[in-house]
Amino acid sequence: MIIDKLIEKIKCMENPTCVGLDPRIEYVPSFIKERYIEKYGKTPQAAAKSLYKFNKYIIDEIYDIVPCVKPQIAMYERFGIHGLKAYLKTIEYAKKSGLIVIGDIKRSDIASTAQAYSDGHIGRADVEGIKYEIFKEDFITLNPYLGSDSITPFLKDCKEYEKGLFVLVKTSNPNSGEIQDLITDGKPIYEKVSELVSKWGSELIGKYGFSEVGAVVGATHPKQAEEIRKLMPNTFFLVPGYGAQGGKAEDISVLFNEEGLGAIVNSSRGIIAAYMNDAYKNKFSENDFAKASRAAAIDMKNDLRRCINIWKKQ
Amino acid sequence: MIIDKLIEKIKCMENPTCVGLDPRIEYVPSFIKERYIEKYGKTPQAAAKSLYKFNKYIIDEIYDIVPCVKPQIAMYERFGIHGLKAYLKTIEYAKKSGLIVIGDIKRSDIASTAQAYSDGHIGRADVEGIKYEIFKEDFITLNPYLGSDSITPFLKDCKEYEKGLFVLVKTSNPNSGEIQDLITDGKPIYEKVSELVSKWGSELIGKYGFSEVGAVVGATHPKQAEEIRKLMPNTFFLVPGYGAQGGKAEDISVLFNEEGLGAIVNSSRGIIAAYMNDAYKNKFSENDFAKASRAAAIDMKNDLRRCINIWKKQ
Repeated sequence: MIIDKLIEKIKCMENPTCVGLDPRIEYVPSFIKERYIEKYGKTPQAAAKSLYKFNKYIIDEIYDIVPCVKPQIAMYERFGIHGLKAYLKTIEYAKKSGLIVIGDIKRSDIASTAQAYSDGHIGRADVEGIKYEIFKEDFITLNPYLGSDSITPFLKDCKEYEKGLFVLVKTSNPNSGEIQDLITDGKPIYEKVSELVSKWGSELIGKYGFSEVGAVVGATHPKQAEEIRKLMPNTFFLVPGYGAQGGKAEDISVLFNEEGLGAIVNSSRGIIAAYMNDAYKNKFSENDFAKASRAAAIDMKNDLRRCINIWKKQ
Repeated sequence: MIIDKLIEKIKCMENPTCVGLDPRIEYVPSFIKERYIEKYGKTPQAAAKSLYKFNKYIIDEIYDIVPCVKPQIAMYERFGIHGLKAYLKTIEYAKKSGLIVIGDIKRSDIASTAQAYSDGHIGRADVEGIKYEIFKEDFITLNPYLGSDSITPFLKDCKEYEKGLFVLVKTSNPNSGEIQDLITDGKPIYEKVSELVSKWGSELIGKYGFSEVGAVVGATHPKQAEEIRKLMPNTFFLVPGYGAQGGKAEDISVLFNEEGLGAIVNSSRGIIAAYMNDAYKNKFSENDFAKASRAAAIDMKNDLRRCINIWKKQ
């Protein structure tokens, strides 16, 4: 099961970090983008090729110290067909490097339309009896607002193809409460959603006690995250909001059990654009941007370990 | 403003119908798909080219009688890069034929990530100062579960590029109530969402009194649709669920005002795969599938008009 594989990588690396591959053209060093602009002009094609190359350098520097990456499809979809080619190539290269890939797609649709998304991302697309793997993510993120009709079509493919989901429960953004925190039957909506997520995942629990159906729970709302942790003992969390968005390791520590398991913490900008941050820009030149990313990933690992009992440094 | 253009097309054609371009390979007649399979094998490329050709035939038969089409991106994303090329080409061809295009993408993400989706679908993608229109939809659908952070980035592009949104409020699927109908402060969540949608759209109201920010309200929950109609007098509705999903013209009639305005009613399968339905298959051969779609579109128009006061046949 893919959740077991993710957990085994986390245990082996003693690192519950996910690197968000959300590249922007502004992050890409000149020595990469100038080459493509020379060849293709200032076009979406040049932008997309720059993003892929940027990712490739970063993957080469982090694949041995982090268990997984999370490309955010919007950053590629922005550049249309060329961008989506870069998304696919990033996934393929990350998987070839041994990384587990979470496609941050947050799709939401129902019934046969949900099935079409499942076919394209975690299942197989059927062309007159021949089956194709399309975007090839290991996990994808989904939005639950449409209810079970928008999630259950994916569960069969999770089972058949050893794939997993992370369903939005409580997101990291400032206005997440507008809908997610509304109170119903004496509890917030995100609690109701967490009950649904537990139910959806109840038949897909792996050998470490966690389900293939995980939850997205932001690091920026630590009290709520702690509540949700108690409500969902068998659910693995994907935790956005660490670092640039303000989430702290101290706040996240309650999401982990005695074995250091329970969550994978994402950082995007803080790692992939580390060379632009004050903390690293004196030590790394633009040409060494990927080495700055490696340094930032190691710093994040140490920061998290500082707060997770089993890995605490003596 | 694009909502005004949509309304003017509806008034001119006396038809509030949207044709859902949600093609599947099973719908595509042999004379189309065999040609592509011969050339490209049973591949995603052949599938995608078949879907585009299928759409093209249908667009040629309906562009003069319906104001708009709604391609469902999942049906194209299923076939990856090739599929998304077919999505883009479908949009381009529909617009060239004078149709207004609603991209049914139901995206949901926050802040700069939402901006990336906006750039790719309704705004412009910037490559070192040069701006590109990417997927070129006139309207797109969005999911509100993440709150204002997931919608406001699109509003600026709506204004700047004359584009519109339809935000999910109450969807047509059987389990839509699991989250959307939960009661908070004595009212259902979809009512809270309708208040947010009205607020988001309040500064983008066109000359007919409707906002560029519309709402998705399913035809399959007529009582709730009627309530929502009263709560949102300035919001245009995109209404899925007519026909194949069970929604009836009688139920939808309350969504229209005295001028016959207020909603655009979608039908997908019922029109694009009409030639496979009992009602049309004796009259139209597979080769005339697009003419069957035209007949079904005319029947739908007449069915809706039967129930909308201003256009009632004498």
